Amino acid sequence: MSDFQSLLSPLTFLEPIVPSRELEPLTEYEAWWRREGMAISSAVDRLGTAWLRMFDELGHRVDEILFPPEYWKMLKQGYQAGAIWRPFEDGSLRAHYLIDYVTCFFDAGLACPYIVSLSTAVPLKKYGPTKQQEQFLPQMLRRDEKVWQGATWMTEVKGGSDLGANVETKARRVADHWTLNGDKYFASNVSAELAIVAARPEGAQQGPKGLALFLVPRYRKHGELNYFIRRLKNKIGTRSVPTGEVELRDSEAYLIGRQEWGLYLILESLNLSRVGNIAGSVALAQRALADALTFAQQRVAFGRPIFEHPLMRRQFEQRFTQLQQARALMWEAIQLLDEVWQEKPRYSDRYHLFRLVTHLAKYWTAELAVQLAKWGMEVHGGVGVLAEYSPERWLREAMILPIWEGTPHRQMLDGLEVMERKRGHKLLFDHLAPNSNSAELQEMSSRIEFLLQLPLDEKEAGIEEVFKDLAEFVARTLATRYNKIAFR
Amino acid sequence: MSDFQSLLSPLTFLEPIVPSRELEPLTEYEAWWRREGMAISSAVDRLGTAWLRMFDELGHRVDEILFPPEYWKMLKQGYQAGAIWRPFEDGSLRAHYLIDYVTCFFDAGLACPYIVSLSTAVPLKKYGPTKQQEQFLPQMLRRDEKVWQGATWMTEVKGGSDLGANVETKARRVADHWTLNGDKYFASNVSAELAIVAARPEGAQQGPKGLALFLVPRYRKHGELNYFIRRLKNKIGTRSVPTGEVELRDSEAYLIGRQEWGLYLILESLNLSRVGNIAGSVALAQRALADALTFAQQRVAFGRPIFEHPLMRRQFEQRFTQLQQARALMWEAIQLLDEVWQEKPRYSDRYHLFRLVTHLAKYWTAELAVQLAKWGMEVHGGVGVLAEYSPERWLREAMILPIWEGTPHRQMLDGLEVMERKRGHKLLFDHLAPNSNSAELQEMSSRIEFLLQLPLDEKEAGIEEVFKDLAEFVARTLATRYNKIAFR
Amino acid sequence: MSDFQSLLSPLTFLEPIVPSRELEPLTEYEAWWRREGMAISSAVDRLGTAWLRMFDELGHRVDEILFPPEYWKMLKQGYQAGAIWRPFEDGSLRAHYLIDYVTCFFDAGLACPYIVSLSTAVPLKKYGPTKQQEQFLPQMLRRDEKVWQGATWMTEVKGGSDLGANVETKARRVADHWTLNGDKYFASNVSAELAIVAARPEGAQQGPKGLALFLVPRYRKHGELNYFIRRLKNKIGTRSVPTGEVELRDSEAYLIGRQEWGLYLILESLNLSRVGNIAGSVALAQRALADALTFAQQRVAFGRPIFEHPLMRRQFEQRFTQLQQARALMWEAIQLLDEVWQEKPRYSDRYHLFRLVTHLAKYWTAELAVQLAKWGMEVHGGVGVLAEYSPERWLREAMILPIWEGTPHRQMLDGLEVMERKRGHKLLFDHLAPNSNSAELQEMSSRIEFLLQLPLDEKEAGIEEVFKDLAEFVARTLATRYNKIAFR
Amino acid sequence: MSDFQSLLSPLTFLEPIVPSRELEPLTEYEAWWRREGMAISSAVDRLGTAWLRMFDELGHRVDEILFPPEYWKMLKQGYQAGAIWRPFEDGSLRAHYLIDYVTCFFDAGLACPYIVSLSTAVPLKKYGPTKQQEQFLPQMLRRDEKVWQGATWMTEVKGGSDLGANVETKARRVADHWTLNGDKYFASNVSAELAIVAARPEGAQQGPKGLALFLVPRYRKHGELNYFIRRLKNKIGTRSVPTGEVELRDSEAYLIGRQEWGLYLILESLNLSRVGNIAGSVALAQRALADALTFAQQRVAFGRPIFEHPLMRRQFEQRFTQLQQARALMWEAIQLLDEVWQEKPRYSDRYHLFRLVTHLAKYWTAELAVQLAKWGMEVHGGVGVLAEYSPERWLREAMILPIWEGTPHRQMLDGLEVMERKRGHKLLFDHLAPNSNSAELQEMSSRIEFLLQLPLDEKEAGIEEVFKDLAEFVARTLATRYNKIAFR
Repeated sequence: MSDFQSLLSPLTFLEPIVPSRELEPLTEYEAWWRREGMAISSAVDRLGTAWLRMFDELGHRVDEILFPPEYWKMLKQGYQAGAIWRPFEDGSLRAHYLIDYVTCFFDAGLACPYIVSLSTAVPLKKYGPTKQQEQFLPQMLRRDEKVWQGATWMTEVKGGSDLGANVETKARRVADHWTLNGDKYFASNVSAELAIVAARPEGAQQGPKGLALFLVPRYRKHGELNYFIRRLKNKIGTRSVPTGEVELRDSEAYLIGRQEWGLYLILESLNLSRVGNIAGSVALAQRALADALTFAQQRVAFGRPIFEHPLMRRQFEQRFTQLQQARALMWEAIQLLDEVWQEKPRYSDRYHLFRLVTHLAKYWTAELAVQLAKWGMEVHGGVGVLAEYSPERWLREAMILPIWEGTPHRQMLDGLEVMERKRGHKLLFDHLAPNSNSAELQEMSSRIEFLLQLPLDEKEAGIEEVFKDLAEFVARTLATRYNKIAFR
Repeated sequence: MSDFQSLLSPLTFLEPIVPSRELEPLTEYEAWWRREGMAISSAVDRLGTAWLRMFDELGHRVDEILFPPEYWKMLKQGYQAGAIWRPFEDGSLRAHYLIDYVTCFFDAGLACPYIVSLSTAVPLKKYGPTKQQEQFLPQMLRRDEKVWQGATWMTEVKGGSDLGANVETKARRVADHWTLNGDKYFASNVSAELAIVAARPEGAQQGPKGLALFLVPRYRKHGELNYFIRRLKNKIGTRSVPTGEVELRDSEAYLIGRQEWGLYLILESLNLSRVGNIAGSVALAQRALADALTFAQQRVAFGRPIFEHPLMRRQFEQRFTQLQQARALMWEAIQLLDEVWQEKPRYSDRYHLFRLVTHLAKYWTAELAVQLAKWGMEVHGGVGVLAEYSPERWLREAMILPIWEGTPHRQMLDGLEVMERKRGHKLLFDHLAPNSNSAELQEMSSRIEFLLQLPLDEKEAGIEEVFKDLAEFVARTLATRYNKIAFR
Repeated sequence: MSDFQSLLSPLTFLEPIVPSRELEPLTEYEAWWRREGMAISSAVDRLGTAWLRMFDELGHRVDEILFPPEYWKMLKQGYQAGAIWRPFEDGSLRAHYLIDYVTCFFDAGLACPYIVSLSTAVPLKKYGPTKQQEQFLPQMLRRDEKVWQGATWMTEVKGGSDLGANVETKARRVADHWTLNGDKYFASNVSAELAIVAARPEGAQQGPKGLALFLVPRYRKHGELNYFIRRLKNKIGTRSVPTGEVELRDSEAYLIGRQEWGLYLILESLNLSRVGNIAGSVALAQRALADALTFAQQRVAFGRPIFEHPLMRRQFEQRFTQLQQARALMWEAIQLLDEVWQEKPRYSDRYHLFRLVTHLAKYWTAELAVQLAKWGMEVHGGVGVLAEYSPERWLREAMILPIWEGTPHRQMLDGLEVMERKRGHKLLFDHLAPNSNSAELQEMSSRIEFLLQLPLDEKEAGIEEVFKDLAEFVARTLATRYNKIAFR
Repeated sequence: MSDFQSLLSPLTFLEPIVPSRELEPLTEYEAWWRREGMAISSAVDRLGTAWLRMFDELGHRVDEILFPPEYWKMLKQGYQAGAIWRPFEDGSLRAHYLIDYVTCFFDAGLACPYIVSLSTAVPLKKYGPTKQQEQFLPQMLRRDEKVWQGATWMTEVKGGSDLGANVETKARRVADHWTLNGDKYFASNVSAELAIVAARPEGAQQGPKGLALFLVPRYRKHGELNYFIRRLKNKIGTRSVPTGEVELRDSEAYLIGRQEWGLYLILESLNLSRVGNIAGSVALAQRALADALTFAQQRVAFGRPIFEHPLMRRQFEQRFTQLQQARALMWEAIQLLDEVWQEKPRYSDRYHLFRLVTHLAKYWTAELAVQLAKWGMEVHGGVGVLAEYSPERWLREAMILPIWEGTPHRQMLDGLEVMERKRGHKLLFDHLAPNSNSAELQEMSSRIEFLLQLPLDEKEAGIEEVFKDLAEFVARTLATRYNKIAFR
């Protein structure tokens, strides 16, 4: 019988797959959320989009984000728990994603700052100039409330997927630094002290290969604002991360890594946040299911709690199983990332395996999060559509998950590319073989090989059905493997 | 090749299945929406929940709903187009649901007032006391802006599905009328001039069979308010229909039909609105797909409109096909209802066939509406989650559709009951036989018969998979039939 | 030369007139406001009216007020600083009003809870039944965050000034308590645990003399809600105190004092809150002036800070003087109240002197608060009307001050009554004589005597001019006296 | 006896001083407001600040202001009634200000668009280049809903009074036009099709004399946006005029008049809008008093309508008299402007007389508007502070009036300058002599002469008391004169 009650706690739900020595340090963090964080998070969501104060009374540009003060307290909890400093202390990213997981169970938007901060700190450490490392990294690794936040600003107004065509921000070399000019359209965590920013150096080629990656601090050397927030965006959810439009106006910037490696670095950064999206999706899916469970166990119809109605019960069981599979997929992605995150081009096969698993997992878990959030509303009936209760919120929060870090469409096409160019599916099947049903594995393999030899347009058009089944197969296979471990 | 452009107009999209003489009268109605209505609808949604002014400055209770004045203009358009008066003139409900369809393409909440007005006018005409018919019906059939609205208030705070247990409103007979006391928790179209209300007469039995149905006008005989609006509810969507909580306090009421028929009358009323939900779902699904199409044809990535990317194109084709199937299912439900709506208990087999088709169609089309709204957001990418554009709105609007008029859970169990007690599936298969693949039909039939002989709990637990496939099968079969007609 | 910088701190500004041993205990309270409270207060105001959650997800009535959680933290600071427990420990109300003063410098609405809590605790102690004293008083005197709040609910929908005619709430005696039925229209601090409520016992006479005063706890003996919050009111300001409409429905209640003393008790309670209004008015006036000063010292026009422009400077000086006079008037009202608050009917001359001074001071200081808030906006120029800066807020906050606790109209007529029936002006002139210009005093006296012998209608019509001059004269005279003390 | 009922209609109230042939054409305009406009205006205010849509879904900058569509209908009414075309047809501005008056009785913000449109059209006609006159003027004089709006953008972030120091927008000559670069901070009517903009040509001197005035159309020659709206400002009131921040970025512009006349042209434009402010102030004051009257006549306390209480009645009479005096002052300013508006530098004595009267009237009437709005709230008691009723709105609307077009401080100092440099007081006294009490006039004259011979700092510091009394004296004197005319 399923232990549904494990749904009520993120750490409890992770227990079967994550070593308890990794979970224990987060006990207090989860407890804080119950004690204080949940009420704050709920208030921040209820408030709607935060205000941007552009100028102070005297007309000085300040670009201050007016959250309730306890927002900042809530935000800093995760940093203090180790969202950034632990990876650098441990040499492993696992603690980061576990913190994301716990965070997203309680506030699906709040992990975004942690994720983009990681996606800033890692390239700074891997590729950043020594001077900037010395200057900025210690700020990002602080364990107190003065910790610096990071941000990753790539997308411009013409769209996010085709960065090569759409990044119009220009970089110009001046003395010991660069200056950037351009506008970023979806700038998450817009009040960060340090951002990594995609731009095209003067004279660089068109297309994705002409992009380079830069560090941009919030303040200029002499203390003035180094970029401007044009406005905050009213989003359907994730109000706990301020997303804005950013104006770069002769903004001081520092090149990270080799100029011609820009695209690789962007993709590496995206890998980090994509795995964060996976963790957040599973956590939100768990939360939606947990809240539905709590309600269904108490709401009585036809003489008994609706949870005890056979159809409802069956639906809970099916979704609980899906959630466990998603959990396995998530943990696999995290572990693989943890093996490859320090690689630089040219990458190993393990890296390509990681990429494929991540495309599958991102696609699959975000979809699950939305579907469980939607189903959670249905379980609540009419109450589910009211702004005053949580299910409505989880649906609003969930909607960003399939879109952030690449839409499903993007995951499929990028996944296809890894299969075509790196034989990623081969790597994947080898990886799964010891634990999978070999007939099923064989059939999946044949379908993919068949697909890959189709003409380009048919290949792309046909990817969805295969990709979806592959994701489900991988999730199920991994869940079986983890179950074996868990019950050993 | 699919004619995607037909998506851009509700009337054009209906052309293949609805006789043009029924569509033509609505040409000006659709044109009005483009000319004026869309902008009004968008403003009303942007405004959020309307205000309720409970008292005037001098302390008189007024319960006035403060919409922008053009809201009322928009609302009255559909009544003037014939949402209520046409069914009574035509002796057919088809015009009503076509108006709902056009309305919901532009504003998914606004058809609700029309639907509940119909659900008030029909029982008033079928079962209402002569005096009240004479008094109220002409008001509801007006063709000018003074037309009266109806409303159907059943649900109380403990929940909507188990009305038998949860309706605590009491009715007491006094002289020539009744008085009602109780609170209604989800009262749609709360500013209606006339509502039908479920209540339990003093001395009536417990459970659903003790319920009776009453007419409750907004004003008492001597002009005072006859019920009070406790508050308007903040819903995720459908802000163009004010939903409130209603306090009945010695409210003057008139019994409709025989007291012991209450439950039947409630279910008849629900049939009417359930079909409205189906029409609204297909219309909203069409709109979401239309907006996604418009965007995809203009948004360029990797050198061409994203609509021309093979995977995106394939996805559009699949969804367009699903939408056409949903359209067929909808039209079948409307036609069947139009055959049986004048029946009184005991009902014919045709009525039971209608019920099963409607449960399938409500379940299937509401799900499609949500999924297309969600997918429409994904097509828009980041832009999709922003409050300032339409896709975010369609998702918010869609979320009510699976919940209003019975959740999916409810449709399945009620559908199961029709199959068990009335052999509804048998009626359905006979109905479809001339146009369906007989092997497939045979298989569906076997699966249902197998299910029906299971023990109660297993039967209920197992209904979902069968019901879903049945809905898809029926939709597909009907679409094929309509295609034949259309292309004849 | 004026020491304008004293404007920047409430405690510093009070130093010249309040013994430092009384101010010192509040140093940490003021410091807390600067450290944390200001930002919280600003966020609460920005949020607009709080949400009322009437029902939980399962349909249980809860009437929960959804403030951001830090609101409650902010609210509790003043209680912990001693808003209620100190008066009961000290045997003096002065600490209470000093806390109000500091509070209102930072948040003009937040002292209201303290004031109405005091106005609840005092009659409970003076007149309450022993059993209820033992039960409730210790809760109100707690020094931790579980302290109970009080509230004073008199006004009904037909208006506040003519309570005798407008209180329709009925009280009925049952066993050991009473039950109340009626609606209160302006119920401040609506989430209080204990309220005093005006109602008319069954059988009591019409008019003000038939009113009695009752204690009404938030929860019934058996734990259910004892009253219901119909809604929160959207006010122009003072969003940090939730004002609502309250429904008393067979609410358990306890008579305070003798039934026939109701009106006296109501007026005694009003005395307490009227003095709170005076303290709040002077504090808000100080704050508006302080913010204007800060701005004017920094904003440069025509080559120098606008504060240095001669006309602006002159205006600051005049307002600073007015503020010092208002401070004297306030402190006099507090001291007089502190002498008489334990009196019961029949009252002494000192009590009547207190009443007249309080009517004058309430009238005068509220007007000053509005005028300085308005002028503060003008000093800020265009910036002053923007919602994102403080001057706009002080104006919104100030507007309640002349209205709460009796409009100017009311103060004048009640003041007139004290003069006519108790020769209050005679008591006042005797009180001021040692420190006033005797010619001026003589002239004021003559004007009043002249007024008093006019026919009723002319007397009332003519009161304003005299009353205004009298208030100004008293304020100026007292300021002179305090200046002598201060500079001794 | 005062005819209080004339307060209820703007045109009726103007009858005693404005020839009926000038009022009659506005009868339908006032009737429209009652029929439709009031409800629209109320909805627009309730909505709060409008939304700015910066980009369309495809990322094109559009800067669209999202008002409810009926806003635009309301806005266009005044243009159609003749706010702009009538002055050009009549050769007189009187019709314009009468339209402002009627408008502001119903919506205090909505006249702003008319006023700034006039302030654009007049300099365009007086000083504009022929080509731009031919191109733009016919658009501004249209009588249909396609009429163009104007706007006057001077103020930048450092403040509005010291334009000479604070205008940092630069103008550069290119071929047949200029380009402007800079940011405007308070840009009223921000969606106008044509604005006049203060900027400093390259090479021009510092200070006010280096400013020039330019025409800036909303769209560039080739159809792109010619300026950008950075954001809309959240103001306490006047939500029916969108105020924003404007970014001029190589904006195409056309010089108006001689470059070195810029300051004169700015001041001429300000004259036009200052008189509009006067009309709006008196109209709002009338409205506040009218609403208070309506309430007071219906609200009963102590057995009779509060309007019949002697003190209340007296207060109404005093305020009604003040309002009549303000009306006289307003009409005088309008008539004087109508005599001098076509003058160009160097100006006549009549022009200087006009300036002084206007400074006095702006100061006096705006103050009255605020004080009556505030008092109107007090008359309403607690109801007055609630957002759902009108008094709260009039107070919010009124607060802009003393600030727009120059604060009181500014009026006094500018008035002082007219007296010092142009002997404006002498002109004024000559103007008033035939109708004034000569002793009083003599005393005013002496006080002013005394003031004028003081040292600069003392003169400025002392202006307020004199200016206030002068304004009151002028208003009273003019009212007497008009009364004579009226009752002849």
